[in-house]
Formats: sequence, C-alpha cells, structure tokens
Amino acid sequence: MSPAPVSRTPSTPGSRSTPEPSAPSPRAYRRLSVAERRSQLLASALGLFAHRAPEEVSLDDVAEAAGVSRPLVYRYFPGGKQQLYEAALRSAADELEQCFDEPPTGPLTERLARALDRYLAFVDSHDTGFAALLQGGSAASTSRTSAIVDEVRRTAAASILGHLQVTVPGPRLHLLVRTWISSVEAASLIWLDEGKHPTAPDLRDWLLDQFIAQLTATAASDEQTAGVLRAALALERAEGPAGVLVRRVVPVVGVAGHLL
Amino acid sequence: MSPAPVSRTPSTPGSRSTPEPSAPSPRAYRRLSVAERRSQLLASALGLFAHRAPEEVSLDDVAEAAGVSRPLVYRYFPGGKQQLYEAALRSAADELEQCFDEPPTGPLTERLARALDRYLAFVDSHDTGFAALLQGGSAASTSRTSAIVDEVRRTAAASILGHLQVTVPGPRLHLLVRTWISSVEAASLIWLDEGKHPTAPDLRDWLLDQFIAQLTATAASDEQTAGVLRAALALERAEGPAGVLVRRVVPVVGVAGHLL
Repeated sequence: MSPAPVSRTPSTPGSRSTPEPSAPSPRAYRRLSVAERRSQLLASALGLFAHRAPEEVSLDDVAEAAGVSRPLVYRYFPGGKQQLYEAALRSAADELEQCFDEPPTGPLTERLARALDRYLAFVDSHDTGFAALLQGGSAASTSRTSAIVDEVRRTAAASILGHLQVTVPGPRLHLLVRTWISSVEAASLIWLDEGKHPTAPDLRDWLLDQFIAQLTATAASDEQTAGVLRAALALERAEGPAGVLVRRVVPVVGVAGHLL
Repeated sequence: MSPAPVSRTPSTPGSRSTPEPSAPSPRAYRRLSVAERRSQLLASALGLFAHRAPEEVSLDDVAEAAGVSRPLVYRYFPGGKQQLYEAALRSAADELEQCFDEPPTGPLTERLARALDRYLAFVDSHDTGFAALLQGGSAASTSRTSAIVDEVRRTAAASILGHLQVTVPGPRLHLLVRTWISSVEAASLIWLDEGKHPTAPDLRDWLLDQFIAQLTATAASDEQTAGVLRAALALERAEGPAGVLVRRVVPVVGVAGHLL
C-alpha cells in the first residue's frame, strides 16, 4: 500500500504535508509529507522486525527496504535502531489492541473466536519478531518495550472483561483473565516453535476450550465468576464451542462417579 | 546459615578446603575453602538479588553482605555483577527445579499441591528478584538468563509429565502442560503485584483447579490426555481437590442444559 504523494494524513495530529525540508537528495525520493515519510519508514521497519530478531536488523536494512538513505532514517529517528524498534513495537501494539474490538453481541465464544483469529493472524505474520520480543534476552528489550507489551496485555484483559460485561472484576476473575492471556501468549510461542502446527483454527478452538474450562473452574469458588459464566452460557448455542465441549466432557469425566 | 569453617563441601566436585591463596587481608576473613567462599558469596548475592531489582544491587553491596572486600568478590567472579547475577540465578534455578520432586504415588492433585507449595514459597522469598527476572526489561536479562529460565520451565514440564506417567507427550498434552506452567508464572507475578493476596494456599488451590479444568477440556478432544485424565481421576479422593471441584462445578453448569 503506497501512500498517494498529495494526500494528507488528517489522522495524525500536527502532521503537515509539506515536503521534507533539507532532504539530502530530493530528486531521489518521492515527495512525502513528514507524517507520510514517518509511516513509510515505520512500515518498512516493522516488516523487517517482524521476521528477524532485532539484533539482525540494521538501519541500513531499513533504509534499503524503504528506498531511502541512511541519513534520512536518522533524521526521522535520531535515536537510531532502538527508537525505530520501539516505534515499530508501538505500532504493532496498536494493531494487537484492536484484536478484541468486537460488537458486544452474540455468544461470547464466537466473539472470542474472532478475536483469537485476528491475534493468531498477527502472530503468524510477525512470527520471528513476536517470538524474539516475548522470549526476552534481546538487547532491544528494555523497560520501555516491556511496558508496551504489558499495556497490550492490560488492554486485552479490559476488552475481555468488557465482553464478560464486568466493569469491576474481583481478584479471581482478574486472575483468570490475566492468566488465560498468558496461556495464549505461551501457546503462540510454542505454536511458532513447532512450525505453526496444529493449524491456527485448531489452536484457536483449543484456546477457547481452555477459556471455558478455566472460567468454569473459577466459577466453582467465586460468586462473581459464577454469575458471569451463567450469563455467558445462556447465550451459547448447542452447536457452538461451549456446546461441543460440554457434550465431549460428559463421557470423559464419567469415571469420576466416586468423587460426586 | 553460616558455614562451619572446618567443614568440607563434598557435594561440589573438585572443591578443596585449602584456604584462599593470596587473599588481600587474610586476618580479616574466616579461612574458607575456595568452594565454601564461592557459595558464601553466592548466597549473599542471591539474598540481595531476591529482594531488589538487579540494577539496584552493586558489587559493594555483595561484598558488604558477605563481609569481604570488593576485590575478593572480583577474584571469585571476574565477570563482576553480571557473572554473579547469572550464578545466583543458576543456583535459584536448581532450587526451583527441585520443587516438583515428589514420590510418584498417591493422588496427582496432592503431589501437585505440594509442588506448588514449594514453588510459591520460593516466589514469596525471592519476590522482587523473581518479578524483575520474569517481567523482563532488566539490563541483567540476557539470552543466557532467558535460557536458564526456559530450562526451569522445561524441567517443570518434564516433571509434571512424569507425574502423569507420560514419557512421549503428544502435541496437545505438551501444549497443556507448558501453558499451565506459564499460567502459574503469570499468577505468581499478579500475586506479588497484589501484595501476596489471596493467601498462598488459596492461590495454590485455584491453580490446582485450573490444572484439572484444563486437563479435562484437553481430554475432550485428545485421546492421550483422556487416558491420562481417567488414570488420574481414578486415584483422586472425594475429599481432595478434584472431588471438591467436581461437586462445585455440577450446580454451576446446571444452566447449560440447552447445550447437552
């Protein structure tokens, strides 16, 4: 997607579509506004950081991918690679935070399924960078990058609680949602590590089953979660994920008669 | 716990109880063997790294806590603070890896409960260091420290699979065990963040419930896990965690009749 040279980008406050001032070789570049050039560099950087560890991306790579000079990259990102990395991460975080944007209607599992599909598509298309970021140990991981990752987790938790129609979660429900999110992250890393097997839809279904099971186990000892579960189950369809899971679990726990 | 000056440490291969050679001020220090001195410095370092972020521990702090000079610390850890940090982490990892050492008898939930008790006691007594390590973003976090943390996770997964009497886990069972371990980590961090509320036994019970629920949901679509669950449930007692959970879940999912 190449931006039209004459278009303005009204969504970026303060941006102007004046051509770059004092560009080293104006004829070599298309005349983009400051905001347009910045997003172009960021898109190029994100494309590189998605599929390589931060250590393996140089500013020259970014300049080459964007078709500009290294000094131009520095003019926009004076902090060099670290600043570009953090800006690319910020932009990826914005995309991730939109995964859970869903109309608050219909069965919960169907909403979560669509959110997980978007999340796993993101993981699929940012595989190496996603793994490098979450596995840690990279020189590019700082307290600032950790804060961005944690913000994504908090936003995802707030979205899920919104879908559960909870505004003030008690400690158990909060713990449940946060730990499920970390399960999703861990499962995504294992999925990448195993060459993206099973298929993304299979992984999504398993993660949904886990969510229903964890919600149910938490409901057993927490009144708020029990209310949330009852309201959620009432909206589920027999042919949906919760229905399939319930019917499959019944025979499996048939051997637990001595516990009843 | 101060080591007896004359005791040998036979558990450290190659250690000798000869006094430190060329100590800067021999009279100032108790005469410890090389291995003894090394463990003393390590214990002091671990004590500091347990309750402060790595950034907030200096070599002077370690020297002071051990009652030795800074040059002596450097003689044992020429790599300075980073080497000390990694050695302290190595020693903490060894301790963590022993959490799941349990005789392979009795109900699974009782074995896991004892393992979780040890794990949460470790988290409790290494709170700040544990959080700093797992939250990332610390300058002391490197690919080597990440590798140590990941080794602990792999050892814990192997121990749990051993308790499930599985030698070759299929993809689903592997995914289940690994994601539960990441849930335990995430829950521990949230627990620390919330001032260690609820109580450790309450958190342990919740984590156990989650394990049973996740095993059950996975068993619904995976034959190997179904076999593992049946074998595990057969050993459970009615008054144990699985029995309590099953009896509490039945009324909660009573509203799911339309899904059956």
